[in-house]
Amino acid sequence: MNAPHSHDWQPAIRPRPMPAAMREQLQQRFGSRLSTAQAVRDQHGRDESPYDTAAPEAVLFCESNEDVAAAVAIAHEHAVPVIPFGVGSSLEGHLLAVQGGLSLDLSRMNRILSLNPEDLTVTVQAGVTRMQLNNEIRHSGLFFPIDPGADATLGGMSATRASGTNAVRYGTMRENVLALTVVTASGELVHTGTRARKSSAGYDLTRLFVGSEGTLGVMTEITLKLYPLPEAVLAAICHFPSIAAAVDTTIGLIQMGVPIARCELIDARTVGMVNRHNKLDLREQDMLLMEFHGSPASVREQAETVQALAAENGGESFEWAETPEERTRLWTARHHAYFAAVQSRPGCRAISTDTCVPISRLAECIVDTVADVDACGLPYFLVGHVGDGNFHIGFLIDPDSPDEGRIAEQVNRTLVARALQMAGTCTGEHGIGLHKMGFLLDEAGPGAVALMRQIKHALDPKNIMNPGKIFAW
Amino acid sequence: MNAPHSHDWQPAIRPRPMPAAMREQLQQRFGSRLSTAQAVRDQHGRDESPYDTAAPEAVLFCESNEDVAAAVAIAHEHAVPVIPFGVGSSLEGHLLAVQGGLSLDLSRMNRILSLNPEDLTVTVQAGVTRMQLNNEIRHSGLFFPIDPGADATLGGMSATRASGTNAVRYGTMRENVLALTVVTASGELVHTGTRARKSSAGYDLTRLFVGSEGTLGVMTEITLKLYPLPEAVLAAICHFPSIAAAVDTTIGLIQMGVPIARCELIDARTVGMVNRHNKLDLREQDMLLMEFHGSPASVREQAETVQALAAENGGESFEWAETPEERTRLWTARHHAYFAAVQSRPGCRAISTDTCVPISRLAECIVDTVADVDACGLPYFLVGHVGDGNFHIGFLIDPDSPDEGRIAEQVNRTLVARALQMAGTCTGEHGIGLHKMGFLLDEAGPGAVALMRQIKHALDPKNIMNPGKIFAW
Repeated sequence: MNAPHSHDWQPAIRPRPMPAAMREQLQQRFGSRLSTAQAVRDQHGRDESPYDTAAPEAVLFCESNEDVAAAVAIAHEHAVPVIPFGVGSSLEGHLLAVQGGLSLDLSRMNRILSLNPEDLTVTVQAGVTRMQLNNEIRHSGLFFPIDPGADATLGGMSATRASGTNAVRYGTMRENVLALTVVTASGELVHTGTRARKSSAGYDLTRLFVGSEGTLGVMTEITLKLYPLPEAVLAAICHFPSIAAAVDTTIGLIQMGVPIARCELIDARTVGMVNRHNKLDLREQDMLLMEFHGSPASVREQAETVQALAAENGGESFEWAETPEERTRLWTARHHAYFAAVQSRPGCRAISTDTCVPISRLAECIVDTVADVDACGLPYFLVGHVGDGNFHIGFLIDPDSPDEGRIAEQVNRTLVARALQMAGTCTGEHGIGLHKMGFLLDEAGPGAVALMRQIKHALDPKNIMNPGKIFAW
Repeated sequence: MNAPHSHDWQPAIRPRPMPAAMREQLQQRFGSRLSTAQAVRDQHGRDESPYDTAAPEAVLFCESNEDVAAAVAIAHEHAVPVIPFGVGSSLEGHLLAVQGGLSLDLSRMNRILSLNPEDLTVTVQAGVTRMQLNNEIRHSGLFFPIDPGADATLGGMSATRASGTNAVRYGTMRENVLALTVVTASGELVHTGTRARKSSAGYDLTRLFVGSEGTLGVMTEITLKLYPLPEAVLAAICHFPSIAAAVDTTIGLIQMGVPIARCELIDARTVGMVNRHNKLDLREQDMLLMEFHGSPASVREQAETVQALAAENGGESFEWAETPEERTRLWTARHHAYFAAVQSRPGCRAISTDTCVPISRLAECIVDTVADVDACGLPYFLVGHVGDGNFHIGFLIDPDSPDEGRIAEQVNRTLVARALQMAGTCTGEHGIGLHKMGFLLDEAGPGAVALMRQIKHALDPKNIMNPGKIFAW
């Protein structure tokens, strides 16, 4: 492990002004699709992170690859930043225009370009959201499993290497993006990957752009893997005497290779928040929420395995659900956790941790962290994609209290140090953005970050692609 | 698609001589572990490709990360090429010292550094072979599934993004490498990735190095995902009236989401070669060889599905095997295909194609290609990882006949053009090496290859890491 690096709470804002000539070029080409209205700029200069808004100078509503390429070429000419924007659901400050520039809103690029059900692939524009995608392909009997909670765009999900509740079985965006169309920093359209399931053809540019958070280019089209809708789906909840007991059950399931589709932890405290918010009387105990996909026989078999394992760990009062309506009801606590938590403290902002550790260390990591968090005195919620070794502490902080933000960051620093010491990562799925730049240095070390910077400098020599994110220039 | 690029049959050899000072530095540090014996140099200047040997100037037998780092630093100082070497099983000319330089033999770096069965991970030195790995971890109840046929090193498999017969279920090296230790072009040791199952921490350097064919750095340690040995394994062969019927069965299996572990095609001609070589009387018909992993119930269920699908396509005379010995016997034709084919024409060399296409186009791609190959008159064999859309035509050419090589390359060009037109790739698993540099340009286009070159120039500005492979500097 390396020495800890600085973790500034508020980012430095250093605008790089847009020359009048650039504004005129954009207006001439895009007319009213270029907006400089303050409300529009503000909306594009924030995300779901706790940072204050840092608005771009202008917002361009793109409608085609050619729009994006032309806009980036103009920005390149003037060395002005460009920040791709989907729905603004990022959690780490990715969308803040900390160096000013132009926000490229891709939400109008929301067409499904080609569905190839016989190949289990689909190609979409980057502004398609995951729910839209699943609605539009439902007739094919296929679905796209990655579910980060928010109805994010596939562009945003690719940019942050998102995952969520289904990753334990289906993988993350890393495993599910086959090919991309990218606008490079000089405004050139480039294609990476193919629709073949595997390839050894040169550097894996697709996976270099996935997770690059808009800093290397703008992804405009994305080819994704799809999966047959499972023949049978079985959801379950099970209550445990402790978080450790729930996590130990999860560890057992993963180690046995049970192909569980979802395995989520919610702690008793968070269930209580949901009860109060939704006027429910769910049992306020640490619980696992699970989902099994497969043939009827395989789903039954998985259910039997999990019951046996849970029993060994004191798990009890299983509830099962098969129909979509019953499953939704059973998963109420999970679906409402975030909003119930945020509503539990009016006016608060959530700061979420995102560590992910090797599964064998997960129980220890969560238990030690919960002790820290309880001791710090801030209100919080706890949810975990525990099948992946990933969990989130959501601190509910008063945005007007500098102390609370500072305390939350301090606890997060301890947590990240713990996770790194366990051979884990500071971010399982949210990305680095502004928030975790210090943590990335701690985790990857200066040598690996130097490689990342060399790549950035090579592909974006004018530092116009979402500058100031992931690492300092 | 782009205009076809040049596909020179023999590469240009342009040695960059090793200065005496460099040789002295190496000798001083490494003593007798530096070899300049002609036989050793020759052995390290060839692989399983049909190219003539291009020997490095010297071979260094490395025993530690520090050895590799020191050797690369010396080579960097003198701007002399460095080529990592495992067991020499590459198929595309990756190991030829076309610009001279130093071969770094990593075969002595063959220790398993840490096995973490509870996390389903293992960290190995790059010189560990896949069979060694599976032998040494057998007691843990886990296994590493990627099986490219040859007993390659994990370093070599990572470098070429290898896959093979189990990829349809377990993925390729792309999906199964979690973390790396890499020596960069300047001789610095860098770590990428962690042991967490997923991460959004910055650029995906791990996947950038996987498949980079030694051109960006030397991978010295590799952390891999492992899998529980399946509770039940069932192997099967089934005969079909035509290649198309076998492939259509495969397409149906993939589209239904059957989690088949292996699904291999062998054509009647190749079975005949095995019969003659091994003095067997296997039925000389196009066949699928399959393997199912899972619980006993799941394996049974998969077997029933495949029987129903095969029957619809005229598949018949299923044979099944459960014990390891029976399975090996059943898979005889697959295991012996390559050697039987090469032995069928004494003195010949095999040139293998490696296209991979979206599964829906696979039957058409194979059938049209077989027609071309039959028409060209060269002897050949045909095997396919058809569950992935990947197949190999192995031309058995007379190395002394320039015509035969030329004809084989011509048929391969037609095949690659066909695969690209079907949204596939020129190489599913063998890599680009020297052989497919023109095809990479056809496939990825000049824009994407330009990005690859920018990355190469940034990370290896002196062009010392396996120069002359994947693309021209």
